[in-house]
Amino acid sequence: MADAVLTLNAGSSSIKFSLFRLADSENFELFAKGEIEEIESNAPHLFSVDAKGAPLSDRKWDRAAGFDELLGALIERAETHLGQDKLFAIGHRVVHGGPKHYRPERVTPELLDELDKLTPLAPLHEPHSLAPIRAILAARPELPQVACFDTAFHHTVPMVAKRFALPPEYEAEGVRRYGFHGLSYEYIAGRISVLAPHLAAGRVIAAHLGNGASLCAMKAGRSVEMTTGFTALDGLVMGTRCGALDPGVILYMGQQRGLNPKQIEDILYRRSGLLGVSGISSDMRTLEASDDPRAKEAIDLFVYRIVREIGALTSSLGGLDGLIFTAGIGEHSPQIRARVCAGVEWLGVKLDLEANHRNAIHIGDKQSRVAVWAIPTDEEVMIARHTRDTVGAPAPAL
Amino acid sequence: MADAVLTLNAGSSSIKFSLFRLADSENFELFAKGEIEEIESNAPHLFSVDAKGAPLSDRKWDRAAGFDELLGALIERAETHLGQDKLFAIGHRVVHGGPKHYRPERVTPELLDELDKLTPLAPLHEPHSLAPIRAILAARPELPQVACFDTAFHHTVPMVAKRFALPPEYEAEGVRRYGFHGLSYEYIAGRISVLAPHLAAGRVIAAHLGNGASLCAMKAGRSVEMTTGFTALDGLVMGTRCGALDPGVILYMGQQRGLNPKQIEDILYRRSGLLGVSGISSDMRTLEASDDPRAKEAIDLFVYRIVREIGALTSSLGGLDGLIFTAGIGEHSPQIRARVCAGVEWLGVKLDLEANHRNAIHIGDKQSRVAVWAIPTDEEVMIARHTRDTVGAPAPAL
Repeated sequence: MADAVLTLNAGSSSIKFSLFRLADSENFELFAKGEIEEIESNAPHLFSVDAKGAPLSDRKWDRAAGFDELLGALIERAETHLGQDKLFAIGHRVVHGGPKHYRPERVTPELLDELDKLTPLAPLHEPHSLAPIRAILAARPELPQVACFDTAFHHTVPMVAKRFALPPEYEAEGVRRYGFHGLSYEYIAGRISVLAPHLAAGRVIAAHLGNGASLCAMKAGRSVEMTTGFTALDGLVMGTRCGALDPGVILYMGQQRGLNPKQIEDILYRRSGLLGVSGISSDMRTLEASDDPRAKEAIDLFVYRIVREIGALTSSLGGLDGLIFTAGIGEHSPQIRARVCAGVEWLGVKLDLEANHRNAIHIGDKQSRVAVWAIPTDEEVMIARHTRDTVGAPAPAL
Repeated sequence: MADAVLTLNAGSSSIKFSLFRLADSENFELFAKGEIEEIESNAPHLFSVDAKGAPLSDRKWDRAAGFDELLGALIERAETHLGQDKLFAIGHRVVHGGPKHYRPERVTPELLDELDKLTPLAPLHEPHSLAPIRAILAARPELPQVACFDTAFHHTVPMVAKRFALPPEYEAEGVRRYGFHGLSYEYIAGRISVLAPHLAAGRVIAAHLGNGASLCAMKAGRSVEMTTGFTALDGLVMGTRCGALDPGVILYMGQQRGLNPKQIEDILYRRSGLLGVSGISSDMRTLEASDDPRAKEAIDLFVYRIVREIGALTSSLGGLDGLIFTAGIGEHSPQIRARVCAGVEWLGVKLDLEANHRNAIHIGDKQSRVAVWAIPTDEEVMIARHTRDTVGAPAPAL
């Protein structure tokens, strides 16, 4: 008999999940993964596949269903699949931990109440993170749940980098730079310490380039600066998000275009970025395959801003020893990696073009002063580990 | 008999002016300078001093006065002071040239109409730039006037650095990064070519650190990137302006705090920056003299962001050959220069501490890979030169 952890990553319209078996005292083995789609529609859809991608289950509703019903069905399926193995705990990615929550925490009603109060800091995301936790707490109070905060890894960033130049009441309300993609960066930091222990002690920039995109500067494995800020809008150009924007542009949108905050939010979160510039797609693969000059323009801007910000983060680090690419684009686009590396050649970055082309893990040239890697990220296994460590190792089978 | 140029730099509550005599065919000699204060109040005040600071004239109104009256009085005084010398032309700093005006231009009614249409891009500044020009055009149509745009020097910045990742209608309306302090940077570029001709061909970052603060990256004397953007709010921490800000913070101000765009504008332009963080002053001299920890916090943030952005601009340049400090803080604060240089030592910047302490011009150590200078800026003489060059050299005296 083995024990298992279910991880949930809830977004605005779907909940992604993974089911891990604890293979031995250290390692998790992916057993199943899947998604509940269209959660707030009249036709929610739950499906899962095994570790090799073979279908495990598929269920569609023909009416709206609450979180309690959907998650009840998910947990029931999971326990059925597990057979004799035991679902030991559930771990959640929670977008925002605010200033005080920077370690994974066991869920209690009190913690949920506190996290609820962070909603003003992340009104688009925090409610989606908390709803499934609350539903499971009500339905299965005996099942341990752990909240893993996507902001937590950046807790070590010095205050001078977190602070905005705003009047102090904003800082007091928690308006500061938090940084996101923390679970991904934490996973990457762990992988570096295995793959390149000498580098783990140095100055490293990790580039999480997916639909959301950011950079994180790490010194000896700890975050010291990042490109995301108070929200995940700031920094790099993303799939549909604008990245860094002159605050005067938002005043222009309000004063000259007469848009209200909700309309501005819609533009900045859903109609900007690669999609906004290209007018074609938020997906880098589609843009790379396109001959449209607007697709090229969007890619050029994406690359330019990464190059510019690598310089900024290197200055915060005081130099650079390693550059790591990860997430969808970072793991799978040799073109983007090559263009970024060409842009930061002045830092001593030199790519092994052949290794880069075949999506190898170690892609730096032997002559490169800066180590260059493309390392697959895994936020889910990070959540599973935190969950186990927070709840405590399961009791050995008798 | 010599010819003279009057330069005007109009802000929201005052108009600064300088009167230059053309000493020979190339050089301007400052003859007088002064200010009209409280221009929109019931007690405007016009005063001027000579090149050595001795009072030349002083006049107070005890009622509101229009631009026509105030500027009429100014020009009359100027012409009286000039005696036999002739006021040849008037040059103006105009904040915004928009996408199309990137060279100094002779003022015509048509140009004024076009510049009026740029007001939505800079509603706080452009009307103040245009009002004096319009008043003088009406009162003294025969007197040549030249508009010198503070955005013009950044015309050479590549489009990829100017573009926001927003839907294309914003770009079409002129919402892009323009950059400011261009007259200052143009003057500095000219000085570098005289003081350090070898450097003028290289990659240089100039730091205009005054009440407004920004960086400009120049390659062979031409701007290729800057920290100010669509407005002068973006980038570095300034006296009362916020600098770079996560766009999500402005949504927070609107949605959670219920502020309207005018209230947000007031916070970002007038209650943020050094003043906002310290709660004490927008003036670096006051903060440097203070023991208050909030003053230290404001200075730390000011320096941190300069260091971070020097890295960003160096990445756009692909390396760094020279670092130039200018404007109030840049010319007069050895402490700020020393802290910035310590932060970018990784780039090969090494300060001559003694030369820095005595506010010398060449402040780089002999071992420094990057040349370091502190060069006084002079936007007024730049306006005077542009004015002469645009109007054409005055006719020789008979």
